[in-house]
Amino acid sequence: MSFGKAVKIGMLGMGTVGGGVAQIIERNGELLAGKTDINLTLQRVLVRDPSRRRAVDLPPQTYTTDPDVVIRDPAISVVVELMGGIEPARTLISAALKENKDVVTANKDLMAQHGRELLQLARRCGRNIYYEASAGGGIPLVRPLKHCLVANRIKCIIGIINGTTNYILTRMSCDDMDFQEALARAQKLGFAEADPSSDIEGRDAAYKLAILAGIAFNCPVDPGELSIEGIKNVTRADIHYARELGYTIKLLAIGEEKPGGLVLRVHPALVSLAHPLASVHDEFNALFIEGDLIGEAMFYGRGAGALPTASAVVADIIDAVRSYERADKGLYANNLGKTKLLPVSVLNSRFYVRFLAQDRPGVFGALATVFGDEGVSLDMIIQKRKKNGIAEIVLVTHDVSEERFNRSLEKALRLPSIQPDAGVFRVLA
Amino acid sequence: MSFGKAVKIGMLGMGTVGGGVAQIIERNGELLAGKTDINLTLQRVLVRDPSRRRAVDLPPQTYTTDPDVVIRDPAISVVVELMGGIEPARTLISAALKENKDVVTANKDLMAQHGRELLQLARRCGRNIYYEASAGGGIPLVRPLKHCLVANRIKCIIGIINGTTNYILTRMSCDDMDFQEALARAQKLGFAEADPSSDIEGRDAAYKLAILAGIAFNCPVDPGELSIEGIKNVTRADIHYARELGYTIKLLAIGEEKPGGLVLRVHPALVSLAHPLASVHDEFNALFIEGDLIGEAMFYGRGAGALPTASAVVADIIDAVRSYERADKGLYANNLGKTKLLPVSVLNSRFYVRFLAQDRPGVFGALATVFGDEGVSLDMIIQKRKKNGIAEIVLVTHDVSEERFNRSLEKALRLPSIQPDAGVFRVLA
Repeated sequence: MSFGKAVKIGMLGMGTVGGGVAQIIERNGELLAGKTDINLTLQRVLVRDPSRRRAVDLPPQTYTTDPDVVIRDPAISVVVELMGGIEPARTLISAALKENKDVVTANKDLMAQHGRELLQLARRCGRNIYYEASAGGGIPLVRPLKHCLVANRIKCIIGIINGTTNYILTRMSCDDMDFQEALARAQKLGFAEADPSSDIEGRDAAYKLAILAGIAFNCPVDPGELSIEGIKNVTRADIHYARELGYTIKLLAIGEEKPGGLVLRVHPALVSLAHPLASVHDEFNALFIEGDLIGEAMFYGRGAGALPTASAVVADIIDAVRSYERADKGLYANNLGKTKLLPVSVLNSRFYVRFLAQDRPGVFGALATVFGDEGVSLDMIIQKRKKNGIAEIVLVTHDVSEERFNRSLEKALRLPSIQPDAGVFRVLA
Repeated sequence: MSFGKAVKIGMLGMGTVGGGVAQIIERNGELLAGKTDINLTLQRVLVRDPSRRRAVDLPPQTYTTDPDVVIRDPAISVVVELMGGIEPARTLISAALKENKDVVTANKDLMAQHGRELLQLARRCGRNIYYEASAGGGIPLVRPLKHCLVANRIKCIIGIINGTTNYILTRMSCDDMDFQEALARAQKLGFAEADPSSDIEGRDAAYKLAILAGIAFNCPVDPGELSIEGIKNVTRADIHYARELGYTIKLLAIGEEKPGGLVLRVHPALVSLAHPLASVHDEFNALFIEGDLIGEAMFYGRGAGALPTASAVVADIIDAVRSYERADKGLYANNLGKTKLLPVSVLNSRFYVRFLAQDRPGVFGALATVFGDEGVSLDMIIQKRKKNGIAEIVLVTHDVSEERFNRSLEKALRLPSIQPDAGVFRVLA
């Protein structure tokens, strides 16, 4: 590599994604320089154990166990944080900004929970934080939302942004597995962690939604305030009935602007098979966007993995080197106040409900009457005989307020012939 | 609007897209300033008839019939070209660059045919040309390819990048229309022009492919050298058989890097219903990308229309104001030589063929033998009886070289029981 501007990078952490970054610079460095005139070198890398053998061998003096060696090196203009977790990442990023470095990070937890304060600090320091890799892995989401769609008022974003749950739901849907079986398969293939609770319960998706909604609606979001429901209640039966009605079930992360504030939520939902999100299978992710100018758009790809994520990190490094959207120009930093989140109950939704009922004359009539009396109108109905005198009844309502729906559901579940639990999911409009 | 940096824009042309830009600045100007700290004003606009009433009323002194008034105004830093066509757009863009303005353009024909020379000129002038809107309308394609995926070696791009033909093929597929009926419908709805030949014959897609491939593979491409085939030969029968085999038919624009050069082509092809491109319906567009790092990704949205396209133009204006990727930094300008294009015949493909044959014993055997003798192995076969002693035979081959396939097809068409024309399409691997 004999051309291009030489740029020295400091990196905090050399795990999966950090290894990917090193690999990219080694393998595609010349290609990158050809496209950008920028020649990247990993100058200093913070690691726990400098003597450990790694897939990419950097010169031994590159490694250090002292973060100050990375952060205070005057030759380094960009610090890449890939340690994950809140501390010490938060302290080190702050220190790097104060040392006049731009920061690139893939840290979802940190940007979701402390993004506002860190972006404010970056602005004060005349620097910027680039965080494309923190949500959506290799899929360009942050840049398109920030830059390509900058002229749009975003109406809503709807994401399939957790690969683990999408893999599980795909297996349940395509291979007729039950939840536990699909989870075990996901774990075996490395798509789910040993403790999968953050994915399964929707917290991972909620953090990513907080980051993406912050950009889409140009205001910081506290992920602790989101309404979150995981996929544990999705059964094979629900997936079958959904398919029969022309839907698939996906874990969606949805952000919408409503009068008076934003509604942000993560929950499983029925998605029409005709919707572009319905064909996002396996571990793939996608973000569907509706803007006032562009109408509908969608970005699809791999939301995780070493090289896809490292690809986003390297793109951010290039933008940092170019001082793109540097905070000292005041860009994207006007709106760092607190955002009003509205509860999901302000929404009208369509609902899918699956009841188990005694298979006796009049049961369906009683059920339908409960909904009718509450003014909840039904769009689709399936009733099927099961074994042992039990019938399964599936209803899909028209749009109804959450309050009204919940009141009618409660009444329905008190009917003597209806069993006291039901599968209940929203239907994507 | 009381905050933000005031930026004065010059615009050449005020047709559909230009009107959209004016509308966006009027309607979303404040939103835009809130996101970017940049306050846009249309300072000078070149029009044919300044007295004409328009949807957005700019102050009368804004309009001029003299391009020099726009290009030479020292208050203007960015010139937006929305006239379309080669001349006078080419001359005016060159003049604007020489006057030290950055240029934003939505001009597909110009960027496809003269992009190389204009980008070279921009570099010499220390300015840049932004052309997101020239391919893919409102869908972010140029930026993601250039910036987000900058670290990737792009293996291939596969686009549905012509809305007219995708609308027609969707109607043929979903509503069982024939080509003429679907075209008439597209024309009625404004998705096809009175003279639809550039769309139908694939030239529009080829121009867009030339632009996108130039970015993806980091080298300029001469659109005149592309292999192009339109959708006129796609029949309802082919669409039905494709569906029976698990495929849909789409007009694809494909760019691939092969040893020794690029292969660029536009043609209809069978796309597996499981492929993300299969669910791109109606007038929507999408670009599917395979990169060595990110794996598969797809960008989906509206490839045309006043506001989607103007949305991309305004995003480019913002980047121009920020001097992002300014040519004087030498970015993306290293590779302006001539690119070697390889003929489609270097590829191996799967082929779909539909024959009409005499419904007599031995006909299928003879046909299969011709292919077998040439070493073309068959993956899927359908034979159906039609009226009047005619049978329809559909074959899908395994991967085979174009040369070998064409030789066997020629022999097959010389068989006495086979009618002399056949429906032949490639199958997306």
